[in-house]
Amino acid sequence: MTSELIQRVFLPRFTNPALLAGNDFAALQSQGGQLAISTDSHIVNPLFFPGGDIGRLAICGTVNDVAMSGAIPLALTAGFILEEGLLISDLERIADSMQAAAAEAGVQIVAGDTKVVEKGKADGIFINTTGVGWIPQGRAIGGEQAKPGDAVLISGTMGDHGLAVLTARGDLGFEADILSDVAPLNHLIADVIKVAPHTHVLRDPTRGGLATTLNEIACQSNVSIWLDEETIPVKAPVKAACEMLGFDPIYIANEGKVIVIVPQDEAPAALAAMKQSPYGVNAVKIGEVKEEEPGRVLLRTLIGGTRILDTLAGEILPRIC
Amino acid sequence: MTSELIQRVFLPRFTNPALLAGNDFAALQSQGGQLAISTDSHIVNPLFFPGGDIGRLAICGTVNDVAMSGAIPLALTAGFILEEGLLISDLERIADSMQAAAAEAGVQIVAGDTKVVEKGKADGIFINTTGVGWIPQGRAIGGEQAKPGDAVLISGTMGDHGLAVLTARGDLGFEADILSDVAPLNHLIADVIKVAPHTHVLRDPTRGGLATTLNEIACQSNVSIWLDEETIPVKAPVKAACEMLGFDPIYIANEGKVIVIVPQDEAPAALAAMKQSPYGVNAVKIGEVKEEEPGRVLLRTLIGGTRILDTLAGEILPRIC
Repeated sequence: MTSELIQRVFLPRFTNPALLAGNDFAALQSQGGQLAISTDSHIVNPLFFPGGDIGRLAICGTVNDVAMSGAIPLALTAGFILEEGLLISDLERIADSMQAAAAEAGVQIVAGDTKVVEKGKADGIFINTTGVGWIPQGRAIGGEQAKPGDAVLISGTMGDHGLAVLTARGDLGFEADILSDVAPLNHLIADVIKVAPHTHVLRDPTRGGLATTLNEIACQSNVSIWLDEETIPVKAPVKAACEMLGFDPIYIANEGKVIVIVPQDEAPAALAAMKQSPYGVNAVKIGEVKEEEPGRVLLRTLIGGTRILDTLAGEILPRIC
Repeated sequence: MTSELIQRVFLPRFTNPALLAGNDFAALQSQGGQLAISTDSHIVNPLFFPGGDIGRLAICGTVNDVAMSGAIPLALTAGFILEEGLLISDLERIADSMQAAAAEAGVQIVAGDTKVVEKGKADGIFINTTGVGWIPQGRAIGGEQAKPGDAVLISGTMGDHGLAVLTARGDLGFEADILSDVAPLNHLIADVIKVAPHTHVLRDPTRGGLATTLNEIACQSNVSIWLDEETIPVKAPVKAACEMLGFDPIYIANEGKVIVIVPQDEAPAALAAMKQSPYGVNAVKIGEVKEEEPGRVLLRTLIGGTRILDTLAGEILPRIC
């Protein structure tokens, strides 16, 4: 059954010389320098949601994690765990979506693995993707690189993905016109680095949202990060849904957004580059990095106060990626 | 919960600079030349079996797949899907086993991911591992490289792993003293290549066993492979259990064995190198490669006949890796 699935569903879609070679490994040409590698297992429930599905999510999640190092993503592996009874038509739809996202990102799926478990021992399909990319010489981008004085930029609106998945589950209790933002950001990021060569930090605010991700960066770099609440972009239906549910959009997961931390003098060019991308039209500066109170994220609120933004304790939205 | 698990279970065991950096990617130094990459998801049931567990299996399976390219395995990623209710003590035991196997193989776990699903939506734990390695200049090892006249060697006894897992399930219906052979083969393979530099094919006979794996190679290389039944090593308890169950050990999965196909003149040195390894003491020549009847695997039986060995249709032992 597994080999039939591979022949029927995966090979026609993911065709490339490495996969067709039929070995248990793929051989890639190395370009020297540093290699970036990242892995993610995807368990989103449901498998299909407004704006995306588990296939697009699995490709974009790993492409983005690799790209956050400043690397050029080159190749992905895909490991499938399928529950008996999964519809072949659903699997084909997911594989189509993976192939489309990989083509958009310009990466190939070079190795794969498929396992099948009995009904009730998984939940439809789980997909692990692991990605490799090359970090061009001289790039030193990472969560530990934020410097006092840097500008903090975000590529667009917060909370879309988490709320889109909630909508698909019917957990909102009302209709809402919210699409997931799931997208490959590697081209946007390459354009940013071209005009902002001293980019210090790139990170996608996924699980735990913007606030939790910025807390990680503040700790890694031993700095504080100050945000202006009024600048943080949130779409109206997301804002409305969050208000009804008691959620704060800055703690909700995104799957197609990137935090960019750059020296102030490179911020305008970085913002302009983001706005050129279909995935960065709402890019905006939301704050800055300071030396005082290291490890903290602070929010200057609309009413003029300052609030400490903690790391999210526990997951408010399980199984959203 | 996930971040607590990472702090408590994974970081103390898998500690290395790449993981401790706290980014969503790991950066590795490239050594130029070709990169080998392989991925495998592990769903073995039960999690613990005589001679191994899912943790050792997850490390060895991917180390071996990378090594089968002739590459030197460098780094692994690990993606965990955990079912709520999994005992932390079991997870710790699995992580210990992974660390021990990785240390034995000389590879590091440089990036990881942990997802938790509700009780009943997985089966304890699933582990994806993806590995990268460097293929030294000039190596061209792969399933398509077998040449007429080559010798076919195997590093040891057939069927141990599959039968060990069956034993652990209580599916045998009787007691049997059978241990899984799960082991990292990269050092054994490096020793073989050193003395048999024209090694054409390396492949581990996992799912579908020796017969299915050789069929893949015969097709890829457009050759036939002839085996002598009497030379194929099978341990007595495995042979006995297979006879009772109606299984053929050459269709049963192994997790610590490698098929080595080399020119005849390099076969003695390759065999001697294998026998030096604790994982190759029963290494033996089992057949040769021929030009006629391409794509077929043929067995010269004990009673003097010749039997075509087909690819296994379907899995006779599900969830053994």
